[in-house]
Amino acid sequence: MAAVPADLSINARWILPMTTRGLILEAHSLIVRDGRIAEILPRAEARMKYAPTMTVDRPAHLLMPGLVNAHTNAAMSLFRDIAAGLPLNGRLSEIIRPLERRFVNREFVHDGVLVSIAGMLKTGVTCFGDMYMFPGETARTAALQGMRAVIGMPVSDIPSPWAKGCDECLSRALAVHDEYRDHPFISTAFAPQATLNLSDEALTRVLTLANELDAGIFIRMHESTAAVGESLQRHGRRPLERLEDLGLLTPALNAIHMTHLNDEDIARALRTGIAVTLCPESNLKSGSPPPPIAALASAGMRLGVGSDGPATNGDQDLWSEIKLLTLLSRQSGDSAHVVAPWDALAAATRGGASALGLEAQIGTLETGKWADRCCMDLSGPSTQPLYDPLTQLVFSGGREMVTDVWVGGRLLLAESGLTRLDWPGVSARATAWASRLGSGGQ
Amino acid sequence: MAAVPADLSINARWILPMTTRGLILEAHSLIVRDGRIAEILPRAEARMKYAPTMTVDRPAHLLMPGLVNAHTNAAMSLFRDIAAGLPLNGRLSEIIRPLERRFVNREFVHDGVLVSIAGMLKTGVTCFGDMYMFPGETARTAALQGMRAVIGMPVSDIPSPWAKGCDECLSRALAVHDEYRDHPFISTAFAPQATLNLSDEALTRVLTLANELDAGIFIRMHESTAAVGESLQRHGRRPLERLEDLGLLTPALNAIHMTHLNDEDIARALRTGIAVTLCPESNLKSGSPPPPIAALASAGMRLGVGSDGPATNGDQDLWSEIKLLTLLSRQSGDSAHVVAPWDALAAATRGGASALGLEAQIGTLETGKWADRCCMDLSGPSTQPLYDPLTQLVFSGGREMVTDVWVGGRLLLAESGLTRLDWPGVSARATAWASRLGSGGQ
Repeated sequence: MAAVPADLSINARWILPMTTRGLILEAHSLIVRDGRIAEILPRAEARMKYAPTMTVDRPAHLLMPGLVNAHTNAAMSLFRDIAAGLPLNGRLSEIIRPLERRFVNREFVHDGVLVSIAGMLKTGVTCFGDMYMFPGETARTAALQGMRAVIGMPVSDIPSPWAKGCDECLSRALAVHDEYRDHPFISTAFAPQATLNLSDEALTRVLTLANELDAGIFIRMHESTAAVGESLQRHGRRPLERLEDLGLLTPALNAIHMTHLNDEDIARALRTGIAVTLCPESNLKSGSPPPPIAALASAGMRLGVGSDGPATNGDQDLWSEIKLLTLLSRQSGDSAHVVAPWDALAAATRGGASALGLEAQIGTLETGKWADRCCMDLSGPSTQPLYDPLTQLVFSGGREMVTDVWVGGRLLLAESGLTRLDWPGVSARATAWASRLGSGGQ
Repeated sequence: MAAVPADLSINARWILPMTTRGLILEAHSLIVRDGRIAEILPRAEARMKYAPTMTVDRPAHLLMPGLVNAHTNAAMSLFRDIAAGLPLNGRLSEIIRPLERRFVNREFVHDGVLVSIAGMLKTGVTCFGDMYMFPGETARTAALQGMRAVIGMPVSDIPSPWAKGCDECLSRALAVHDEYRDHPFISTAFAPQATLNLSDEALTRVLTLANELDAGIFIRMHESTAAVGESLQRHGRRPLERLEDLGLLTPALNAIHMTHLNDEDIARALRTGIAVTLCPESNLKSGSPPPPIAALASAGMRLGVGSDGPATNGDQDLWSEIKLLTLLSRQSGDSAHVVAPWDALAAATRGGASALGLEAQIGTLETGKWADRCCMDLSGPSTQPLYDPLTQLVFSGGREMVTDVWVGGRLLLAESGLTRLDWPGVSARATAWASRLGSGGQ
């Protein structure tokens, strides 16, 4: 029997493909060829059928799709928890915005994105949805590291170090989009900022461009009582209602935060098929109530999970978000509406992929998808003895269990060590930035 | 100048003694002699004054008091997340209690406690408050591992594999107390179970014994609407009121859970000086609302933090509890009452020590106290750049940053590896138990 060539065969104790609720495969191999998943099949059959260039054995590990961080601001790692004693609004307006105007440039974004990529790889993230100035630099940095990203290109009428206003944002965004049009790992989306301030015309232009280019749209919304109130005052409607009137509520929209929703908002979000990305830790930390997780999940909403930016959240640890998602859904004591461990993991993998418009490419382990995946070592004392890998992964899993991470077949984290990224160098540059930003630090 | 002999000098980048709010020392050394902290002093002075047998440099690390897990059931690691799909009450009555009656013996407790000690050391815990059958075995196992513990000895009128009823519980408890009366690491407390079922006489007897022996008392209370309601029905009072009438509300009481409190309960707890141990993750996971953290903290209550048992919580990760404590306190959006990062860390160190009656021995790093401490590596991508070690430790800290743990001067975790405990052996025994307990698993 002629063996089929392959690049890699991974023999993990468990494979959690996230395709069918609860399905965990034992004694299977995952075969990779040309960066994509060729097949998942019983180990004995795999040995007969394939002749892989390399075989990796992970006898105490669970192999699963890489996590998808559906909302972050990667470059903002350089503002990590800066002036954390102040309330969020004050921190943004009094500390972070002035520092941004003074310091943010391509180099800042490059260095900040590298810090975030290091942290995300170590927590098992293989793809992130971003939103920040100099999106071309974020794209370039991620591409060079072999990290998958969907680059949200800001559209704002407030002048920034990157662009003077909406027109310049859009022309620069189009240039970034063009550059990465056919890139295997990088795609782009439009990210209108502070949509309350944007005119109907500007938003309509974004929608037209996104439709033409088949790009997604990322918008933070319903993130506070004030934001909803201001929309009512200025536009006579709640944010979701205004955006629906403008035609922006489509499945291509990734609506971020969504902490302040009434029943009508939820019905509207569901009816229009938008995706909702929850950032539970960031919301709590900023003093928002948590998003209505149980209500959204039981309504069948498309849900992703994001860490939000490290200036707000501190870290970009999706394991902590996954656990919080299910814990917070249990607060009401209404067991009919809790987010089950499966659903929390689904939001952090296939759900996030869908929110970023990549559901056909990543988010599950199945033939033809990119081989973006992570390996979790379940042999340590937090997960032994092991009765149920899926439940224990959600309630006791942590970033320290992540041993190997591949993006598109390339190994970016091996036995918990970064393979490409020079962490000591990146870390030294981050420390130099912290000194320049002048807030004590080291 | 004659150098003073010492066993160890630790030069960590930062020392967080947890003595004075916000105090972080740089360029200091901590000197250990005979298992106790001899002095903390500027590094240059330390070099002049002491001649330590050993010097440990931790240039990217923060040295702090070991964490205190103020409530767990260590042996129950062997039931980790078993049948986690069922609601808590059903799991306890239908799965766990029958398994306990059939399987729990000294060997079970020994093996389960070892699993928990491994997990706790890896998360930086140096002391735990326990509550389970065969407390003598828990004490013996902890003592052999060099782990500090306060062993809560169950007092229950329900027959268990350990004791037939209250009388036998008390006589066995006295034997355990006697055995460890002068032990440097092990102390004992009485742990009345299901106090609603215990007679006034039984509780009074516990109180008398605890007073005589100068032992603490651990009681789970106000943990559900049902528990409070049943107390009203059977005893005509809320649990705290009944226990106050019986004289049990004293500073020696560690009141665990306390999720269902009204203003009068809080006032009563505060007035009587009891300590409250919060188990936020376990509470949420079980579908309880979280304890009124912000109200308790702003009232100035003595607060400790516990993981609860691994059958309920999954893991015993205090870093996760510390973060949750401050996050949950922010839910209300009332910034005046949030638990600050300092207070969350204080609850997990000096607060827990106080709840366990050990505030004179451990909980802070100061001269004369036991040298129980842990070292956190802050050089990784979750905490770089570093602007504020304390804040970033709370919001981005994780068990993977714990590198070294000492109890009473003895190094039990070195560069993230267990020094005494044979994890492969312990893990294999845990797996064998899981098979015997017969719930699928491995």
